Amino acid sequence: MRYELYYWPSIQGRGEFVRLALEQAGADYRDVARGSGTPGMERMLSWHSATPPFAPPFLKAGKLVIGQTANILLYLGEHHALAPRTEAGRLWTHQIQLTIADLVGEVHDGHHPISGSLYYADQKAAARKRTHALLTERVPKFLRYFEAILHANRSPHGAFLVGRRVSYADLSLFQVVDGLCYAFPKASAHYRKKSPRVHALAKEVAARPRIAAYLASERRIAFNRDGIFRHYPELDQVIYAR
Amino acid sequence: MRYELYYWPSIQGRGEFVRLALEQAGADYRDVARGSGTPGMERMLSWHSATPPFAPPFLKAGKLVIGQTANILLYLGEHHALAPRTEAGRLWTHQIQLTIADLVGEVHDGHHPISGSLYYADQKAAARKRTHALLTERVPKFLRYFEAILHANRSPHGAFLVGRRVSYADLSLFQVVDGLCYAFPKASAHYRKKSPRVHALAKEVAARPRIAAYLASERRIAFNRDGIFRHYPELDQVIYAR
Repeated sequence: MRYELYYWPSIQGRGEFVRLALEQAGADYRDVARGSGTPGMERMLSWHSATPPFAPPFLKAGKLVIGQTANILLYLGEHHALAPRTEAGRLWTHQIQLTIADLVGEVHDGHHPISGSLYYADQKAAARKRTHALLTERVPKFLRYFEAILHANRSPHGAFLVGRRVSYADLSLFQVVDGLCYAFPKASAHYRKKSPRVHALAKEVAARPRIAAYLASERRIAFNRDGIFRHYPELDQVIYAR
Repeated sequence: MRYELYYWPSIQGRGEFVRLALEQAGADYRDVARGSGTPGMERMLSWHSATPPFAPPFLKAGKLVIGQTANILLYLGEHHALAPRTEAGRLWTHQIQLTIADLVGEVHDGHHPISGSLYYADQKAAARKRTHALLTERVPKFLRYFEAILHANRSPHGAFLVGRRVSYADLSLFQVVDGLCYAFPKASAHYRKKSPRVHALAKEVAARPRIAAYLASERRIAFNRDGIFRHYPELDQVIYAR
């Protein structure tokens, strides 16, 4: 079965978490809007299917149309061994993914604290305040959490978030680290010291053959100022007390 | 098995979505912090279990400790017939729930657009702007989406979001409607006209015997200004063009 991924063709965005899982799975998929633009995607959003998504990304898998990033990963995790098969392992992986999703939402709202319909330039003052809280309180709290999970799960087989194999949550955590490094290079230099296991995992994920090939390919869209992780130098200015 | 729910004892918050599911399921559960305060909960947050939650609510189900509201509902849906058994139905219900969760997050950020660590009073100007966008753009968009789902799924058996039986997503949509009515009575009078099916569903959920008994009991905490849905009259001031 050839999957069809529907997502905005010019950004990594939330679609990237799905792309990484599809790439690691070696799945056959078409990134629809990158080939034929967004009309097809917009048609799907307007009740073309019985289970229309609220927003991209969504995945067409045979007759299924699955929306919500974490839900798509839940599906791919089960079908491509990107999560444990046990109920406990499946729920735990999904729990971590939903926590990553919360962080991603907070990162987005750092540059759009008032409204997604306004330009960044029109909410710059609030963005500066929100990003300060994001970089000094929230990101460190999330990274401490992931660091602690990796610490608790350490094994001679490598350090994954769940069990002894790579899961979709590991791929997503790589994406978060990569995005933070792009958007906030100064803050990230600090985070790297504070959460070495998280950063080691990100490095390991990036080096996996299928992911490395993907990252080097044209399929990987470069980070830019339309996505979730955006580099505005004026937002990467915080003093770290510790 | 007796479930243990861990959540802040003085607010409905995100815990309420779990409480409603447990009540509709007729499940045996203890709302731990309401009996014995939060120290037990805080202990669990600090690596008392192998799968520590990032934040409340979380549910102890035998040996499992499950965090993230939507993840807990995914579990309860499977174990208490609060979601279809088919893969397609299970994913669709979860997809709707995750979309509800997105709306809930946006409602929270309406009064806390800058930081959860600051008081509302310290981010009032931004809150006014964000809530304006929330009430005029975002909530209507979400309600249109849920309204369309109910329209597409209408049947003589009643109008549920998924299939012909009540699911945890229906219970959660009731909670959102109830919260919006409390927080934004003026805006909600407008929403009621625009999304009659959503409001009819909320009424139907509230009238279900187990839910009605719960809502009338002391187990239901009243809405207040510490929760997600907060009534600040100054935020409920928007002009609806249509």
